Amino acid sequence: MNAPGSVVRTAPASSPEQVFDWLDEEAAKRAEAGLVRRLRPRTADVGELDLAGNDYLGLARDKRVAGATAAAALRWGAGSTGSRLVTGSTELHAELEHELARFTGAQAALVFSSGFTANLGAVTALSGAESAIVTDKYIHASLIEGCRLSRAEVAAVAHADPAAVRHALATRRRNRALMVTDSVFSVDGDLAPLPELAAACREQGAALLVDDAHGIGVLGEGGRGAVHEAGLADAPDVVTTITLSKALGAQGGAVLGPRRVIRHLVDTARSFIFDTGLAPGSAAAALTALGVLRAEPELATTVREAAGNLAERLGAAGFVVGAPAAAVVSVRAPTPEDAVGWAARCAELGVRVGCFRPPSVPDGISRLRLTARADLTESDLDKAVGVITETAPERARG
Amino acid sequence: MNAPGSVVRTAPASSPEQVFDWLDEEAAKRAEAGLVRRLRPRTADVGELDLAGNDYLGLARDKRVAGATAAAALRWGAGSTGSRLVTGSTELHAELEHELARFTGAQAALVFSSGFTANLGAVTALSGAESAIVTDKYIHASLIEGCRLSRAEVAAVAHADPAAVRHALATRRRNRALMVTDSVFSVDGDLAPLPELAAACREQGAALLVDDAHGIGVLGEGGRGAVHEAGLADAPDVVTTITLSKALGAQGGAVLGPRRVIRHLVDTARSFIFDTGLAPGSAAAALTALGVLRAEPELATTVREAAGNLAERLGAAGFVVGAPAAAVVSVRAPTPEDAVGWAARCAELGVRVGCFRPPSVPDGISRLRLTARADLTESDLDKAVGVITETAPERARG
Ligand SMILES: Cc1ncc(COP(=O)(O)O)c(C=O)c1O
Ligand SMILES: Cc1ncc(COP(=O)(O)O)c(C=O)c1O
Repeated sequence: MNAPGSVVRTAPASSPEQVFDWLDEEAAKRAEAGLVRRLRPRTADVGELDLAGNDYLGLARDKRVAGATAAAALRWGAGSTGSRLVTGSTELHAELEHELARFTGAQAALVFSSGFTANLGAVTALSGAESAIVTDKYIHASLIEGCRLSRAEVAAVAHADPAAVRHALATRRRNRALMVTDSVFSVDGDLAPLPELAAACREQGAALLVDDAHGIGVLGEGGRGAVHEAGLADAPDVVTTITLSKALGAQGGAVLGPRRVIRHLVDTARSFIFDTGLAPGSAAAALTALGVLRAEPELATTVREAAGNLAERLGAAGFVVGAPAAAVVSVRAPTPEDAVGWAARCAELGVRVGCFRPPSVPDGISRLRLTARADLTESDLDKAVGVITETAPERARG
Repeated sequence: MNAPGSVVRTAPASSPEQVFDWLDEEAAKRAEAGLVRRLRPRTADVGELDLAGNDYLGLARDKRVAGATAAAALRWGAGSTGSRLVTGSTELHAELEHELARFTGAQAALVFSSGFTANLGAVTALSGAESAIVTDKYIHASLIEGCRLSRAEVAAVAHADPAAVRHALATRRRNRALMVTDSVFSVDGDLAPLPELAAACREQGAALLVDDAHGIGVLGEGGRGAVHEAGLADAPDVVTTITLSKALGAQGGAVLGPRRVIRHLVDTARSFIFDTGLAPGSAAAALTALGVLRAEPELATTVREAAGNLAERLGAAGFVVGAPAAAVVSVRAPTPEDAVGWAARCAELGVRVGCFRPPSVPDGISRLRLTARADLTESDLDKAVGVITETAPERARG
């Protein structure tokens, strides 16, 4: 029996071998629920048709972009060697920041080692214990982690619903406020109503943070992104985060916004300060990808058209397909098991598609997640539609 | 006056231009406290003597390592194109994981896009609302963020104090427990008492998570790390995180541990699942760096000797210098302003040193943070000691 104030423990100290037994119990539960994931390393030969990656413009393997990584590694080294505040800032990073701001129309930019850490940094540094945060309930996991870290009062409201945002902002209990949303939602591919959200924020004295990970390179004039398209790129009350790892074909992330926001992040964002700077090769790749986009602004139109075609043809074949706002096409599956089986059959026939199901879908709906690329050919599209149709589960046609 | 239940706000809705005014107020406070940071992009020519970066073995610019980045980018592309669970796992990632486990003596390994996200993933996935976490109070910021995200009951105890850890574990209110520590502490360069901590954990039925970011490549047989040196690399109750961005000269991070831990991370670690896989070029660089370490195991000894020499000579010159456990040498400065001025004068004379002061020092002590490299020459050391001595503030000699 425990004396008052003594240790309250439900089990005796275990042996070292038993300390992680609970992981096996959780693994068994996941296995039962069909939620075990496996890593399937791919080979370097692109034998299959890839409709699963986020290399929307086909730039990851572009000779200019990959070549820029190679040249930068040889000139600057494989790694950046330290925090951006110590030795991890090279002239390449500065040039990339300058060009990102210029391209997107933002006052300034700050490069992080990933879109994930950019989101952590932006959300936490622009909120805090004295802030309220209102989010769309379908925001990306990295934004959710940022909110959890923020110490702010957080309210997640209905998806793509400016009235809900306005109400939540109006009834907040903290003076300072930040609204957080994806532009293009990563799973379903739909677009947030940015102008209306900005209006609601302004009416309520809140700042707006938009994660344009899936918009940059795809939406807006020449791929300048959804925030540029909404006319908010240089707004004094709007901050944008992007990733360098999707349309720009590289790795890394960035925050774009008013100069004072960027300065604030340099001084306070923990995921910036306490993290090694982005590898020079990745910075060079993103910089070169921006150059390619400037030279070939039609790439953005091309990928949107490819996504539109794909969605239209799958819709015509009877599937439940959302109208894609950018490059992501979501095709509904009846059940999680159906989605897994469907994706596996597609892979067997040489078409790689994403398979999303709970718990990584915010709306609980299982689906195939297809991504278009600017370099998809007519025959790629034919093959994709053919294979997806041929392998569809019974009740997938809506 | 507010009606009951109505909005409680201390200020009227502001104009868009005013939304971020609070950032300027905070900036002014930081300026007053001398805490403004500036990014100083470096050039590609290594003109100065770098005692600030974490490229402990000099591998970031090694031709084999940088060449591996170049070759991998050309073969695999600049970016990995997706989450590790979708398209972001290549054979390179699998090979790196295999080799990391083999080299360090762990059962298995999982590569993340940074040491920061590896720490977030390991801490959150191995704890949770039903867990207690006990940490050394000087752990790295990324581990602290992991603890904040974990929903666990968190207790930070005295630095490098196994008795304090034992007490905190014994008095925890949750059954499951995780102890979290750095091996080599990043700011002061001292070593955690790993065998004693492991003993305390075992006595109390807790798992041990060690961040070996500054130990890998530097400590242990041939640079196998502090956990290997403590005989804990294949322990069933110990998990290690590392970064690929310091001694390995690349970018990225990894978790090493029992196979069931790695499987659990693949299924549940949000900073793994919702993040783009590490760029192929960075994976290749780290893999090649491990090969270099295998071929030249003396690199680890060399950097430790260089750090020891540097510390000894600065100590003999009258400065307050800790005995370095690995490659990090900490030299005490009287005040934050002294540290800033000292580092700036060193830079003017061609020696780049780290300057650490509140709030990024856990113990409140301002210091120069010097790092040794395996490729420092005798004349580099002479120059370093000469310049640091010559530029020292009045009261820096203890
Ligand atoms: C909407 C969104 N934001 C942020 C991220 C994170 O970016 P990164 O993969 O560069 O960390 C992703 C995907 O990975 C995403 O889909
Ligand atoms: C102790 C420690 N852990 C983790 C990290 C984070 O690793 P990375 O820079 O690869 O994100 C660092 C430094 O950056 C560190 O010093």
